[in-house]
Amino acid sequence: MSEKLLLAGPASEELGKSVASRLGFDVLPYDFRIFPDGESKFTVDAKLTGKSVYVVQSTYPPVDQHLFQLLLVSHHLSQEGAKVTAVIPYLAYARQDKAFLPGEVLSLGVVSHLLRSAGVRRVVTVDIHSAEGLSLFASPIYSVSAIPSLVKYVRAKLNGDRPVVIAPDFGASKRTEAFATLYGVDYLQIKKTRNRTTGEVTIEEPDLDVKGKTVLIVDDIISTGGTVEASTKTVIRQGASKVIAVCVHPLLVGNAIAKLESAGISEIIGTNTIPGKFSVVDVSDAIASHLGTLDE
Amino acid sequence: MSEKLLLAGPASEELGKSVASRLGFDVLPYDFRIFPDGESKFTVDAKLTGKSVYVVQSTYPPVDQHLFQLLLVSHHLSQEGAKVTAVIPYLAYARQDKAFLPGEVLSLGVVSHLLRSAGVRRVVTVDIHSAEGLSLFASPIYSVSAIPSLVKYVRAKLNGDRPVVIAPDFGASKRTEAFATLYGVDYLQIKKTRNRTTGEVTIEEPDLDVKGKTVLIVDDIISTGGTVEASTKTVIRQGASKVIAVCVHPLLVGNAIAKLESAGISEIIGTNTIPGKFSVVDVSDAIASHLGTLDE
Repeated sequence: MSEKLLLAGPASEELGKSVASRLGFDVLPYDFRIFPDGESKFTVDAKLTGKSVYVVQSTYPPVDQHLFQLLLVSHHLSQEGAKVTAVIPYLAYARQDKAFLPGEVLSLGVVSHLLRSAGVRRVVTVDIHSAEGLSLFASPIYSVSAIPSLVKYVRAKLNGDRPVVIAPDFGASKRTEAFATLYGVDYLQIKKTRNRTTGEVTIEEPDLDVKGKTVLIVDDIISTGGTVEASTKTVIRQGASKVIAVCVHPLLVGNAIAKLESAGISEIIGTNTIPGKFSVVDVSDAIASHLGTLDE
Repeated sequence: MSEKLLLAGPASEELGKSVASRLGFDVLPYDFRIFPDGESKFTVDAKLTGKSVYVVQSTYPPVDQHLFQLLLVSHHLSQEGAKVTAVIPYLAYARQDKAFLPGEVLSLGVVSHLLRSAGVRRVVTVDIHSAEGLSLFASPIYSVSAIPSLVKYVRAKLNGDRPVVIAPDFGASKRTEAFATLYGVDYLQIKKTRNRTTGEVTIEEPDLDVKGKTVLIVDDIISTGGTVEASTKTVIRQGASKVIAVCVHPLLVGNAIAKLESAGISEIIGTNTIPGKFSVVDVSDAIASHLGTLDE
């Protein structure tokens, strides 16, 4: 076995193997099962002293189960003497990165602390929700961007049609602006406010220049779809001819898909940080390119 | 607020409050929510420097979610200066306490390590699966026994009828023997072997003196019910008049209940380490009695 190995965790088997193949890393085999009561169990039978092991495991729902699997296997590899890098394409709890009210638990900080305790020396993720999130990690953390891969895919798909890019709220604006800039099209921002207690979303209705145009609503995460739904209704009222939702992490929980379809979204485009029907853009190249620059 | 506080975690609200009330501890209030994507979030707004906080949180399924909630809140309390004792009535991963094959991850050891990393100074649980499990904890751990509470309940229920107590396998035998001894009745052991690869259970059919008698099958955990089902069939074939399943932790996952009923079990008796329909025996007194003996 070579010095650099990759373990494709149960939540990211396909993506992990694809990253390994791009880099020429050996894939570290393991046995894995989930017992009927939901407990996970790993068996990794290999000599690992001094090896670098890249554990690829996304932490989409069930978030705590995928996270705990990552902690279990990382701790074991590290106890066996491996130098562990956790590659977490979708990082759960990344939105719990700021305390707004006294006593709020910064859950992402706890995740970071536990990963470190489990022997993870550094973390690689894809489009972390915020820069504040990065600062909660005491270990090195790198956020790879899937935006270039998304732009490439959408551009090929739209085949010359020049869309307008919309940021559905202020939080999305930087990432959305990067998307629009790379694409070479205009971008507009919708102002959204969310009531911190009730969770209710209010949209300011601005005049948007979208009449007869294809609109791309671009965000990092689509979770319940509430934010994108509200923006979709706004741009459709203002005459958009077609609305496409573009995101890095297609969480799409609950009835998000039905909600977006009934709001008038004609397509949902996401990446395989979260595998599923809408994970049409592959991030393995973006991840592999970054891992290729790391020392060990 | 007093120096000793109890936080009744979301998985054990009722049990936690009952323990606090028995001990006269103040209950530490908190806000809690689960987001649609399954992330948990706590807000605990209190001055905690120097306080002792007992966090009562059982880790029944969804095991990783309940475990992660415990880690989140314990880490926060500990960061706020509290001395944290985790009271974990049902301890998930306690059966992953030994490595049988090379490379098997000792998941309980990882749980122990993460609890300690999250600032948990000591752990109190109820009837841990094995003594080996205790040895995986570097921090102090105490296993409180619910057996006396179970015996008291069953004795009152059977109203003078003298049952035979059966250990469904070797692993259960010590706990079952303690149950029978305390009850003052005979106990018998059924020999079970489980294929480590397939999980298939084989029962040796001994001659058991159960004809016309009430049989109690006593184990620490009933999970899928496979072990108890096999034993029930054996004692019914040998003429038992009534079979009752008694356990500390009624996990009862999947179709366990239907399986046990169709095997001929007339009743399932468990404790509230795992809340539910069969959690008829209260362990709050057993837990409170132990906590009452702790220094701080």
